[in-house]
Amino acid sequence: MDSTIRQGEISVDLPPAEDAWLRFIGRIHTPWTDRKDCPRQGRPDGPECRVEVFEPWVAALQGLDAFATVELLYWLDRSRRDLVVQNPAHSDKTHGTFALRSPVRPNPIGTSRVKLERIEGNTLVVRGLDCLDGTPLVDIKPDRCAYTPVAPPKG
Amino acid sequence: MDSTIRQGEISVDLPPAEDAWLRFIGRIHTPWTDRKDCPRQGRPDGPECRVEVFEPWVAALQGLDAFATVELLYWLDRSRRDLVVQNPAHSDKTHGTFALRSPVRPNPIGTSRVKLERIEGNTLVVRGLDCLDGTPLVDIKPDRCAYTPVAPPKG
Repeated sequence: MDSTIRQGEISVDLPPAEDAWLRFIGRIHTPWTDRKDCPRQGRPDGPECRVEVFEPWVAALQGLDAFATVELLYWLDRSRRDLVVQNPAHSDKTHGTFALRSPVRPNPIGTSRVKLERIEGNTLVVRGLDCLDGTPLVDIKPDRCAYTPVAPPKG
Repeated sequence: MDSTIRQGEISVDLPPAEDAWLRFIGRIHTPWTDRKDCPRQGRPDGPECRVEVFEPWVAALQGLDAFATVELLYWLDRSRRDLVVQNPAHSDKTHGTFALRSPVRPNPIGTSRVKLERIEGNTLVVRGLDCLDGTPLVDIKPDRCAYTPVAPPKG
């Protein structure tokens, strides 16, 4: 954990506040092993990355290959969680944490829409990620934009 | 928790797997108090909903009013977590959990892009939600689509 604070940043004291558990369901493999090498935002023409799904969740991939774009949720496990105001390295002013997509946030969950190239067994091959190699996977959803609900709209 | 299973659905036995804690940072207020009344997907012209942010996170809203669209993450606290294959009520076949945006999933986190109408103190007024009244809030991010990074792209 990075414990340094930049000028103007504000941290808060956090008591234990354990409201819900996450279960890691897989692991993301990317070319980036140091935060300084990660792209600032993933691009649809970025390198192929591999999203490994652990058992017993592999059966839950059934039908996912029908979607060109999927949404991934993952746990940014190297991030501190106590900053409410941040001073991004390349900005000349401070920003509230919720006005940034910085990995530093009270619940460090990253979300990305990625291009699904193919599924190989328990592994999705995708483009469009920007996270570190080894990042724990939390969820996979069909993308809203690409998504036609199975059921007709209610009401 | 709903413990019924429909024909063709597959559940898994889950040992305790407590990989990361979430901290609830607020609460979402919507018109819907019963799951059967929730719309199947939020709409930008849907009713106004109120997203209450708890202390000490209110300071983290600084600058969020510059964004027309924000992404909300919330905890679908009434959902079972053990289904890998589901049989949605209005579908004629089964689907893997990751090929659905159903609230039933190993980590029941909902994501929505919503229209930010205004901010009133510690509360965002938004349109586009579809979740139950009282749903715990997990994160607020500027929407990717509406987002211009503070810093120039790296490399």
